[in-house]
Amino acid sequence: MTDLSIRPATADDLPAIVAMLADDPLGATRESPNDLTPYRTALARIVADPHQHLVVAVRAGRTIGTLQLTLIPGLSRKGSTRTIIEGVRIHSDERGTGLGTDLLQWAIDTSRDLGADLVQLTSDATRTDAHRFYERLGFVASHLGFKLAL
Amino acid sequence: MTDLSIRPATADDLPAIVAMLADDPLGATRESPNDLTPYRTALARIVADPHQHLVVAVRAGRTIGTLQLTLIPGLSRKGSTRTIIEGVRIHSDERGTGLGTDLLQWAIDTSRDLGADLVQLTSDATRTDAHRFYERLGFVASHLGFKLAL
Repeated sequence: MTDLSIRPATADDLPAIVAMLADDPLGATRESPNDLTPYRTALARIVADPHQHLVVAVRAGRTIGTLQLTLIPGLSRKGSTRTIIEGVRIHSDERGTGLGTDLLQWAIDTSRDLGADLVQLTSDATRTDAHRFYERLGFVASHLGFKLAL
Repeated sequence: MTDLSIRPATADDLPAIVAMLADDPLGATRESPNDLTPYRTALARIVADPHQHLVVAVRAGRTIGTLQLTLIPGLSRKGSTRTIIEGVRIHSDERGTGLGTDLLQWAIDTSRDLGADLVQLTSDATRTDAHRFYERLGFVASHLGFKLAL
């Protein structure tokens, strides 16, 4: 098996990333894989912000995973910095291969390198398999996650 | 009653903010109100990041509330930008006065002004009063919030 590489996402990765976002029970109704224009605009915003780390996992030239890590300085917990993980997706052919663990471990290690004291994420209440996965990595489901669409 | 003002936090607000962070069942064990040094360092990090909006609510010269709003560009949901609200605190003398609603409404309005499509926050599972408060404002508790201390 070829080595896995985890590197910053570029515009060339957008078709593969958006296909993964759309290939999902929740994402299927929320994404537009046939029109990448809004994603190109969004990628430019992400790349312009040094506290955003949008990465892809690549093996043998195939983009097979993605996540976004955001660094947030804060006052609470004695001025702790935290990271937030969003948009975790693993290609459907690659689930169960340990790729998710590798990608999350990258996010945890990078959070530590960036000086964070805490890593957090939210997961839709319906994604029970994902919850078990995060708990195996040491995450604790101590919070409720609230969303308000504008 | 004097008008409420919501404005960016400065170093002069730190004693009042940290006192509010510490005057809380969870914060009591996590904060150091007698040593503001780590908070001063953290405030410098927050102020240096244009996507962080740490504000205080002030009435009649008293700092009576605080929250931090973070703007996060992303790819999912057709390149949506979201905001995250952290560190919401209302002075114990001011609870039940509608100040929390005013402060959250400021965060929602500012999120819209900043071009966000979604506002999200997490709340410790034990804070059941806060959950009802967020639901009254239109937030939906659709997610679980996971944390990993580093």
